[in-house]
Amino acid sequence: MPDVIDHAVTATPTRPFPHTDLLDTADLTAADITYLLDQAESFYEIGQRAVKKVPTLRGITIMNCFYEPSTRTRSSFELAGKRLSADVINFSATGSSVKKGESLRDTARNLEAMGTDLIVVRHPASGAAAYLAHHLSVPVINAGDGCHAHPTQALLDLFTLRHAKGGLAGLQVAIVGDISHSRVARSNLLAMRTMGMEVRVCAPPTLLPAAVERYGCRVCTRLEEAVEGVDAIMMLRIQMERQGGHTFPNVREYAARYCLTRRHLALAAADCVVMHPGPINRGVELTHELADAASSLILSQVTSGVAVRMAVLYVMWGKKKK
Amino acid sequence: MPDVIDHAVTATPTRPFPHTDLLDTADLTAADITYLLDQAESFYEIGQRAVKKVPTLRGITIMNCFYEPSTRTRSSFELAGKRLSADVINFSATGSSVKKGESLRDTARNLEAMGTDLIVVRHPASGAAAYLAHHLSVPVINAGDGCHAHPTQALLDLFTLRHAKGGLAGLQVAIVGDISHSRVARSNLLAMRTMGMEVRVCAPPTLLPAAVERYGCRVCTRLEEAVEGVDAIMMLRIQMERQGGHTFPNVREYAARYCLTRRHLALAAADCVVMHPGPINRGVELTHELADAASSLILSQVTSGVAVRMAVLYVMWGKKKK
Amino acid sequence: MPDVIDHAVTATPTRPFPHTDLLDTADLTAADITYLLDQAESFYEIGQRAVKKVPTLRGITIMNCFYEPSTRTRSSFELAGKRLSADVINFSATGSSVKKGESLRDTARNLEAMGTDLIVVRHPASGAAAYLAHHLSVPVINAGDGCHAHPTQALLDLFTLRHAKGGLAGLQVAIVGDISHSRVARSNLLAMRTMGMEVRVCAPPTLLPAAVERYGCRVCTRLEEAVEGVDAIMMLRIQMERQGGHTFPNVREYAARYCLTRRHLALAAADCVVMHPGPINRGVELTHELADAASSLILSQVTSGVAVRMAVLYVMWGKKKK
Repeated sequence: MPDVIDHAVTATPTRPFPHTDLLDTADLTAADITYLLDQAESFYEIGQRAVKKVPTLRGITIMNCFYEPSTRTRSSFELAGKRLSADVINFSATGSSVKKGESLRDTARNLEAMGTDLIVVRHPASGAAAYLAHHLSVPVINAGDGCHAHPTQALLDLFTLRHAKGGLAGLQVAIVGDISHSRVARSNLLAMRTMGMEVRVCAPPTLLPAAVERYGCRVCTRLEEAVEGVDAIMMLRIQMERQGGHTFPNVREYAARYCLTRRHLALAAADCVVMHPGPINRGVELTHELADAASSLILSQVTSGVAVRMAVLYVMWGKKKK
Repeated sequence: MPDVIDHAVTATPTRPFPHTDLLDTADLTAADITYLLDQAESFYEIGQRAVKKVPTLRGITIMNCFYEPSTRTRSSFELAGKRLSADVINFSATGSSVKKGESLRDTARNLEAMGTDLIVVRHPASGAAAYLAHHLSVPVINAGDGCHAHPTQALLDLFTLRHAKGGLAGLQVAIVGDISHSRVARSNLLAMRTMGMEVRVCAPPTLLPAAVERYGCRVCTRLEEAVEGVDAIMMLRIQMERQGGHTFPNVREYAARYCLTRRHLALAAADCVVMHPGPINRGVELTHELADAASSLILSQVTSGVAVRMAVLYVMWGKKKK
Repeated sequence: MPDVIDHAVTATPTRPFPHTDLLDTADLTAADITYLLDQAESFYEIGQRAVKKVPTLRGITIMNCFYEPSTRTRSSFELAGKRLSADVINFSATGSSVKKGESLRDTARNLEAMGTDLIVVRHPASGAAAYLAHHLSVPVINAGDGCHAHPTQALLDLFTLRHAKGGLAGLQVAIVGDISHSRVARSNLLAMRTMGMEVRVCAPPTLLPAAVERYGCRVCTRLEEAVEGVDAIMMLRIQMERQGGHTFPNVREYAARYCLTRRHLALAAADCVVMHPGPINRGVELTHELADAASSLILSQVTSGVAVRMAVLYVMWGKKKK
């Protein structure tokens, strides 16, 4: 299909990304992140066309292994793979060998033995992606492991911010919500610091990890303090289905102190943007009004997600480890 | 892939269908319906070939959102999309953000933000498809919403009937079963009246909506009266999994009065055909014998379904609302 | 897409395979089996390429109907179909008409009416695949029916063995485990005898079918006796989720007598290989050490599976029965 080969994409013969897996933003230098975001620009442009498809990964097999329920991340990776013309197989823990007691490693080695070229994995256990990466010879892309890391989410957030602001270095960002249990927060914190951004984290004390200052961020317990003068506010999802009532009294009390409102936004920089990894709880993390306001980048994040994942699949493909 | 471009399909440069969503047959004129059925003829012919695939929607993303269990409608839309070379993503309420409490609108706007070109939705709530259509800028195709509408089912029924009878105007049809709760009955009733057909509805009084005569149909409570002299009989599925014993005493008693038998068919026109949207309950809605008789169009309806859905996807694609 | 047509594959204009369905290895002659394995060689070679895709079944629809949970077989067939460029629709008993009480036959006839070209079926009832084959005019491929047959598993096992040993006739093989309930054992036993191999079966007496000797195999109750001098050992999965404690006291006692260890392997031929259909229970059917040893063909079986299923889909396609 030479008529659809995309020269913007294929014109990068050298791929200087040195990693054989994408596990954690902690592993990435500023050059690595910039490289991935630059690649994503080409794919973002493809997503704006009527025909959003390139033959780049034709004949390549991507296994989408989701051991946790997911809509957007699973669909986003599936769509990214299909737009690259790859064959994408969805594999979920339901109706699988997992139920039959097979180990994660044996399952993954089986998928690899089928001729899989790339493995995307989401798993409730922190470290699951790294464990697989250690045992497999095909690249592993971490789509979220426990409370540990969610690197493609952080990359898409940076991509969205860079689009909105023109650059990343020097930006001031507040990350608000359940910092303790959020792989989104941790991956963003690390990546943002690497990119020279200033980060404040804000949460009730019970939802702040011990010694969070070691990441080089400023800790605020009051939302007003966190958002003052910032360029971007990233609200985290309160995972109501996971809270056992142990970490904060109830949702209403949480929202009274940490739900972002127009009043808070007025304290931030004039062009401050609001982000959220979704799915959002309107009225809990931010008001209905702010979710749909012009300052909200929430849907842009979703759009960027497909482009960033196309870039990640493209860059990681072929990075055999042995 | 110029070798597989299908001129029969692409030879209609003007697409006079004026609707930006396909929600309900109530919205469609006779010209609209005829246009869709004519388009479906081309696709029906493609379905008879060895290679049942055209590149018409290559690079287009279709999101198949099913909030109710479904085999045939989901598979039929998936197959229709794939035969048009679109990328089809199945999204179901299981294992999704729906479980996390996200609103239908936010879920759909997220799917749209991923660069989805067409959204097919089935939902248990009447009006869900129209609600989405109102909030999205991409075309929404209703694959069944509550007790309200199932327009592609009605279109495939008309397509099947037109194939069998050569035309629609003036045909006499009996629709038998749970008229009250059936989106299939309502969508067919409206479309059939629009196409100049005469419709009788037949059900126990508890399964007849109030003032059903306003649709311009004749109401019969005896099956013998309903089928007398008709050209087609459409039996509706008794949704045994949904009946709480409130609307009729039990299945045996229902079947004694409303199960279509050879004896009833003898009262109809000599070339009367029997239809059913499936899945059928043999011995409840119609006898085992009639389900497999030459007069049965039940499997033809399934075949037509793929062609009609290919036509609908093709016609609706690109009808951005804003 | 003439650039990717694969002459190795398309160069066999005559397809001498006489069967219209693939239901059971009992139906296959040595010539049939050799023909399928030879075809699989071409596809195996394709699986080793960077671009693992051929246009052979472009525009063809394959329905993957799984009425039992499955990872590897479902994914293996899906991948095989996609690598042949077919459109593959996954259909599972969950969320389907099956829940609404539709008969297996009606479901399958509906899938057929959609224009399906090949039906792959896994079902808990022995005989389900043959039942469908009888009622459908498209080829049916049995992906495992109850305790009856799993022909593609046997074919992939033979393919793997032939690769490892250079030939099949005269090989001595021990099959160890739950012979009574294993469709894998039965299909292998029949196929291996047909190919001129010598087979020993080994199990606790409660897991041996009555009169198993009629298959022409030797029965051993001691593992040491079974493996002595053999060329290959095939360990069967103990389906712990299905054992009600009726057939052997407990897993520990089973493992004490039937778990394959290095000590047993030392009794076999020097180049003896170890096989297992997976998923494996490490420490139950074989030791952790042996699962990963150089003698293990377990992952090769998985790789062969995709190639064998590509061959089966390719050979069966177009064998309409009526």
